[in-house]
Amino acid sequence: MTQVTQTQTLDDLLKDSPKNWGRWGDDDEIGCLNFQTPEEVLRGIREVKAGKVFTLGVPMGNPAGDPVWPGRAGATRLMTQDRSHYVSGKKQPLPGGLEYADDYITAFLQGSSQYDALGHTWYGDKIYNGYDAMTTTGGMDKAGVDKIAKHGVVGRGVLIDMARHRSTDALESGETFGLDDLHAAAEAQGTTIDQHDNLLIRTGWLSVFYTKGADAFYGDSFVEPGLTYSPELVRWFHETEIVSLSTDTIANEVTFEPETNIVLPLHAALMCHLGVLFSEIIWLEDLAADCADDGQYSFLYCGAPLNIIGGTGAPVNPVVIK
Amino acid sequence: MTQVTQTQTLDDLLKDSPKNWGRWGDDDEIGCLNFQTPEEVLRGIREVKAGKVFTLGVPMGNPAGDPVWPGRAGATRLMTQDRSHYVSGKKQPLPGGLEYADDYITAFLQGSSQYDALGHTWYGDKIYNGYDAMTTTGGMDKAGVDKIAKHGVVGRGVLIDMARHRSTDALESGETFGLDDLHAAAEAQGTTIDQHDNLLIRTGWLSVFYTKGADAFYGDSFVEPGLTYSPELVRWFHETEIVSLSTDTIANEVTFEPETNIVLPLHAALMCHLGVLFSEIIWLEDLAADCADDGQYSFLYCGAPLNIIGGTGAPVNPVVIK
Amino acid sequence: MTQVTQTQTLDDLLKDSPKNWGRWGDDDEIGCLNFQTPEEVLRGIREVKAGKVFTLGVPMGNPAGDPVWPGRAGATRLMTQDRSHYVSGKKQPLPGGLEYADDYITAFLQGSSQYDALGHTWYGDKIYNGYDAMTTTGGMDKAGVDKIAKHGVVGRGVLIDMARHRSTDALESGETFGLDDLHAAAEAQGTTIDQHDNLLIRTGWLSVFYTKGADAFYGDSFVEPGLTYSPELVRWFHETEIVSLSTDTIANEVTFEPETNIVLPLHAALMCHLGVLFSEIIWLEDLAADCADDGQYSFLYCGAPLNIIGGTGAPVNPVVIK
Amino acid sequence: MTQVTQTQTLDDLLKDSPKNWGRWGDDDEIGCLNFQTPEEVLRGIREVKAGKVFTLGVPMGNPAGDPVWPGRAGATRLMTQDRSHYVSGKKQPLPGGLEYADDYITAFLQGSSQYDALGHTWYGDKIYNGYDAMTTTGGMDKAGVDKIAKHGVVGRGVLIDMARHRSTDALESGETFGLDDLHAAAEAQGTTIDQHDNLLIRTGWLSVFYTKGADAFYGDSFVEPGLTYSPELVRWFHETEIVSLSTDTIANEVTFEPETNIVLPLHAALMCHLGVLFSEIIWLEDLAADCADDGQYSFLYCGAPLNIIGGTGAPVNPVVIK
Repeated sequence: MTQVTQTQTLDDLLKDSPKNWGRWGDDDEIGCLNFQTPEEVLRGIREVKAGKVFTLGVPMGNPAGDPVWPGRAGATRLMTQDRSHYVSGKKQPLPGGLEYADDYITAFLQGSSQYDALGHTWYGDKIYNGYDAMTTTGGMDKAGVDKIAKHGVVGRGVLIDMARHRSTDALESGETFGLDDLHAAAEAQGTTIDQHDNLLIRTGWLSVFYTKGADAFYGDSFVEPGLTYSPELVRWFHETEIVSLSTDTIANEVTFEPETNIVLPLHAALMCHLGVLFSEIIWLEDLAADCADDGQYSFLYCGAPLNIIGGTGAPVNPVVIK
Repeated sequence: MTQVTQTQTLDDLLKDSPKNWGRWGDDDEIGCLNFQTPEEVLRGIREVKAGKVFTLGVPMGNPAGDPVWPGRAGATRLMTQDRSHYVSGKKQPLPGGLEYADDYITAFLQGSSQYDALGHTWYGDKIYNGYDAMTTTGGMDKAGVDKIAKHGVVGRGVLIDMARHRSTDALESGETFGLDDLHAAAEAQGTTIDQHDNLLIRTGWLSVFYTKGADAFYGDSFVEPGLTYSPELVRWFHETEIVSLSTDTIANEVTFEPETNIVLPLHAALMCHLGVLFSEIIWLEDLAADCADDGQYSFLYCGAPLNIIGGTGAPVNPVVIK
Repeated sequence: MTQVTQTQTLDDLLKDSPKNWGRWGDDDEIGCLNFQTPEEVLRGIREVKAGKVFTLGVPMGNPAGDPVWPGRAGATRLMTQDRSHYVSGKKQPLPGGLEYADDYITAFLQGSSQYDALGHTWYGDKIYNGYDAMTTTGGMDKAGVDKIAKHGVVGRGVLIDMARHRSTDALESGETFGLDDLHAAAEAQGTTIDQHDNLLIRTGWLSVFYTKGADAFYGDSFVEPGLTYSPELVRWFHETEIVSLSTDTIANEVTFEPETNIVLPLHAALMCHLGVLFSEIIWLEDLAADCADDGQYSFLYCGAPLNIIGGTGAPVNPVVIK
Repeated sequence: MTQVTQTQTLDDLLKDSPKNWGRWGDDDEIGCLNFQTPEEVLRGIREVKAGKVFTLGVPMGNPAGDPVWPGRAGATRLMTQDRSHYVSGKKQPLPGGLEYADDYITAFLQGSSQYDALGHTWYGDKIYNGYDAMTTTGGMDKAGVDKIAKHGVVGRGVLIDMARHRSTDALESGETFGLDDLHAAAEAQGTTIDQHDNLLIRTGWLSVFYTKGADAFYGDSFVEPGLTYSPELVRWFHETEIVSLSTDTIANEVTFEPETNIVLPLHAALMCHLGVLFSEIIWLEDLAADCADDGQYSFLYCGAPLNIIGGTGAPVNPVVIK
């Protein structure tokens, strides 16, 4: 990251920003998932027209590397046994003759398509809903990803294709968009973003990793394009009661807030303050191509991260049904 | 496992058993997922009535251990950073003040709620669709779990609650059931198992691990209850074109076929020969309680394992919507 | 562990216990390794008579399990490639034809023959030499095992064979011995324990794991035999300026101090207060048999744990030369 | 690596190269370690003059990365508990008050200072001593690193400082040296390389990683400097009966044999054919500086890799005593 000088902090920037802490009780750990009533699930179901299915998880364990935030690493998958163990006499078939292959993985929980736990990021000494940030020590006692996993994220989803709206395959490093851009893109698509929706935004950024390679993706200093902070944007999320935000970037927002150089302020304003669920590194190319093709940008969204106890996040392979 | 003597092998047992190899072409890697047409997806959608959501993934990374097949181990989750790193001065907040927690996991890919790759088990030298079993070396070049992950398993699901049918919390170790039992239980429930369904069977076995502890679950010799092989059963799967089979056991079938002591013959007859998808270690207690309560045993089933390249299996947190 | 009631704490027990904090400066991180002068190294060299070599590291990655403190797990070793990858066409030989096998390990750093970092255990809020215990957060900033690794532990070693002294293959669970026993055993062996020695004590306990199995080793409640606390013992370590203590148990001392039920007080009195190096899970059976055979219980001891930055401990395969 | 064209293979190059297969019996797995008699150990002991100790293991788990062969990764060390767990109330002290820190590692076994198993590399279908290369499947059944670990490598060591001999801090990428150079450097140092010695060669190459950074070390295409193949060199190793070869490079020889572009022929000629032990990624800067200072280039060498069952290699922290 480039060196930045700044006079502002999240404390300054967000001092009047809305908060949902306590809104669902002192022991809430799922934030905007509370908006997901059975009626909202049925609203999602009603978006299904043709029976088309898309999965949004990126490949994991690519020998050539997975796209990750610098400092993390992609998954490593290793065999514990396979056919060669039987051929070489190392293993005997089970009684009757059955043989099997097994494998093992090591992975950063934030190193592939994933859901963040609501307590994954914070500033000061409190995570979402006012829990002490020391509850993150050694694992998320509060607002861990297991709480999302047990609940499941199901409802109406809507895709805003910002890259297509800007007539590009992928936004540039550092390129930003805001609330007006979301509205303009939605209107151009003929889509509405409705109360309690799951919002998916395509920037095309992730495709750079796969089409142009890691060097083009990371550059000299890793700066992603993305949504940028404004008080209006936060207010709109608050009022529209968006359940979850998914994008095809690693951090769901532009890396630096351009005016202040504050890093990732929406993680504070949306996730930590409001309890909006963040799902990152999401593959949207195939879905977006289909939406452009049939003009239908809304669908049933269904995302359930792995149920990892106390996880700061967990891998997910979200499903979209149109 | 108990020592067994036997005169029969899978070669004998299954010499007249039906096969779907080549049915969808020589390069097919998804088997019965080919039955999952858009119309079948819509058939699943139409089962949704009330908007209730259930997730079926067991907890991963339990410090007290996860239920696994002997020889595997549960997941280990470890922090790479958390609030304590900032408090102790080991880490500095990002510019603006944001802090975050991160973690890491090591796991057997078959060590929690998961989908098997179609090539996960075989006998002789060929896996599903006739691919050379040596293609499993170092990772599944053919019929890996990534093929299932990219496709997604979505359609009508139906739960057969065998434990409840037998008026028990959990079937006994080694207790079996067959096709007639499935039909009888379905009839008692007022449910039909239809063409191209995703079949879920509850034995209650997995709950033993959580309610009675690991010693009760594993016993002196690990023998699970479950579905038992018969030519009729295999024929029925073949004719009904069941897409996937999920159970709350580790191996989806009784550990030993009682007459021959052959281990796990349905892995050969259903997965390897027919291409039926297996999803194992699935949590069905909450779903089953709800089905008993409202009498609705059919629903939209939605399962998408992680997209792990070449995996013999991958964790999944399936979603059911009623 | 059994439930214990107690009225005493390490604070009470050790309030008059000697400390070496500050003895080698405020920035010391190697404790009694400071006693290891070149002259002491030469003293060890002079013990070599016949040119016999023994290595003291236990096997790691045993498929049947490694002996570990409950809650830890043994090492898992997995291949990343081997001959089967070439046979199956997954890998191509290097230009000219060379092929190779590679592997990977996951391991608890305290889960095999190892050296503890001096800061590995503490009570209150200070580790060895008075460093803040929060410096252990995320890795040992102070008194980590890398400091021992860079230095190496080399000098005269002496084996006290307590099991043989008590005419048994292995001490019983919970069996203790103290300073008088050490002296008596040394005298019976015809050995002296000299100033600045590296002290190795054989209990035979570790051999129980390998000869009688894990169940016999762990029992219903894991209680090891071993050295037991007394003010005299601590004073003797202090005055004799023992550099390192190695035993064939997991924790180098009896699990519970019998009078107070305090757990592992010598970790506090010797390691944390005095800076005595602890090396645990050390294989002494072969060395002890040879010492009994030739009557020579002193030798050159040479132990260098892996140089793992900030490690709480690190595996080691110590070498003894007689 | 650069793309190479070649007409020669190891089969051609080494068809008349000497072999020690069968020399120590059909079941030998330690090769030139058989030369290490008690008398040779004593010969090493006699080199010790001043009692100076050096450890040769590189740091492992450096957050900035460890030097590894491209495709491998350095070790990752993670905490399982530390002081912050007690401060935050996640953990309770042991009875009496003791607290402790623990950690965990994932690592390539060839990813730091290590010994290669004798069976680590081969060509054709046979590893050292003629064992079937399929015995490497899933772990080294034959000639694994555990065989070296149980034995220990102890004897006279001699350092040849090729970098200093060429008046440079580090040899250039691709720079080679041969038998004559070894002899010339030894003579300039006033050293002899004797029968059954452990040979250490400093190129300075590893220091490039630490002083100039990873980019300078890896370059666009990773080509190391090092010893280069000649029939004379192999014959000399054979006749001098060198026990082990250690260098401060990742592969102990120049990456490409310059005339044929064959990759790593000495792994075949010395390790696979003769059973010479290879120890790689060895830190020689401090030892070399001391040798230059006191003019003593011979010493007691003591190397014992971790006792990892079936490992293709294992980490080691060798000890030198002068």
